[in-house]
Amino acid sequence: MDRKTFHEEIARLGNEFSPELVEKTNAMLAPLVPQPDEARTTRDIAYGPHERHRLNLFRPASDAPAPCLFFIHDGGFVMGDKGPAGTPFYNNVGAWAQREGLVCVAINYRLAPEVQWPAGREDTIAAICHVAGHAAEYGIDPQRIVIMGHSAGANHAADVVAAPGAAAGKFAGAIMSSGFYDLGIVVRDPFKPQYYGAGLEDWTPMSSLPGLVASELPCLFLVCEYDMAECQEQVLGLATARYDAKGRLPAVHVQAGHNHISACRQVGSPLDSLGPVLADFIASR
Amino acid sequence: MDRKTFHEEIARLGNEFSPELVEKTNAMLAPLVPQPDEARTTRDIAYGPHERHRLNLFRPASDAPAPCLFFIHDGGFVMGDKGPAGTPFYNNVGAWAQREGLVCVAINYRLAPEVQWPAGREDTIAAICHVAGHAAEYGIDPQRIVIMGHSAGANHAADVVAAPGAAAGKFAGAIMSSGFYDLGIVVRDPFKPQYYGAGLEDWTPMSSLPGLVASELPCLFLVCEYDMAECQEQVLGLATARYDAKGRLPAVHVQAGHNHISACRQVGSPLDSLGPVLADFIASR
Repeated sequence: MDRKTFHEEIARLGNEFSPELVEKTNAMLAPLVPQPDEARTTRDIAYGPHERHRLNLFRPASDAPAPCLFFIHDGGFVMGDKGPAGTPFYNNVGAWAQREGLVCVAINYRLAPEVQWPAGREDTIAAICHVAGHAAEYGIDPQRIVIMGHSAGANHAADVVAAPGAAAGKFAGAIMSSGFYDLGIVVRDPFKPQYYGAGLEDWTPMSSLPGLVASELPCLFLVCEYDMAECQEQVLGLATARYDAKGRLPAVHVQAGHNHISACRQVGSPLDSLGPVLADFIASR
Repeated sequence: MDRKTFHEEIARLGNEFSPELVEKTNAMLAPLVPQPDEARTTRDIAYGPHERHRLNLFRPASDAPAPCLFFIHDGGFVMGDKGPAGTPFYNNVGAWAQREGLVCVAINYRLAPEVQWPAGREDTIAAICHVAGHAAEYGIDPQRIVIMGHSAGANHAADVVAAPGAAAGKFAGAIMSSGFYDLGIVVRDPFKPQYYGAGLEDWTPMSSLPGLVASELPCLFLVCEYDMAECQEQVLGLATARYDAKGRLPAVHVQAGHNHISACRQVGSPLDSLGPVLADFIASR
């Protein structure tokens, strides 16, 4: 499939998040993405006591200390997975990192409704501390760990940027893809209330927005042309708030020709338009 | 020079446009950028009667019809050049295109104060019509011409998107890098008044902004982390106006680690963070 055909199909699927959009996007991409070198992959390393406190470690061919992309999956706070062996997503991110000479760590975290905010932040901090503490063993340059989350995973990353706690100083940058930073304006879909609380009228105190605006950490915010309207509204609000506060825009990419799930799920494929951007951001930390 | 060192130096140079910023950025990049295959390059093709009505044509190895990146240089409306043979900028863009299997056309256009607005738009339209009319001869797929302008060149591209005139239907997309779309809020530096009129109090009627908001043409807007404040203000205003009018954001990239001139001038270098984005946008038209 060439890029033109792919992007035409993405355009046709539109920007409403639907089972059809998910199924058809996945079906296009699953055959295109690379699989990791399992000989350089270690799965389900425990970073905490819960069964979801597990991370996959993808190492490049060289044992020399490498920058690390620390990836936090999506799934509306209630589902999703770093991906068992043999599945396309997000083994594609691990495989891409290996090829780029980077380490990738992909984490699972506890899900709602079993846990609520800020459990995702707590788990992410625990995993960052685990990785930083095992940097030598895992072949990671501890000065060059970049965290990245997509959708619900972006919220966990954003919560950590806004309030890094024990992870402070243990990561050099953050990439947030299609996240929700101002909880005062989010759509109350069937998922978010399970994490932020259906009974709470105002979620604003849990917003990462003020912390993101105040942070001096190098950050890259991603959203897509065919992303949900609320994801675009979020990034516009964030950029405006940051510009108003600092007189400068944050790094934001509104990626042409992608929907809410396609950009992260095509990383490593022959169509890949996001990988080079990630590689550059990580290399410049 | 690795990316980390390069981006650190860019950060150190800051975001104020100055002779030092220009000289040091150029000095870093000149040794890194590729030179075109002159055997596949034709220079100074006339597209009109003026001595500035000249374009360079860079063709890839294959004669098969290829997409075309049509590049409009910067220079504050009063200077700049597509680049004589042997110079780094913007032969780098032509060399990059050749390597990517794309045709590149790089134009000169008449300069202020000899001419004023909308001469840049008129020249760009004339050059697009020339290229579309010679597509078969130049090895160009006429359905896949993408125009791109940087700084003052972005204004000429934007003016053509807003009011394409005789070029309507002759280009499939537009990339605008660090341009000025709302002339009501621009800084009156020593350059812009020579093109828009020092004696005119209100330049708003010459703004491309309303046309850019209304256009359905696929567009990509670029600006940089260390760009001038007014360039960032412009793209934020454009994105906000477009979102308010259509409920959707345009494709915008705020490129991390670059200043007003570095992003376009590193295309084709080993550091290149913009080339893959351009390639993807062009391939998906």
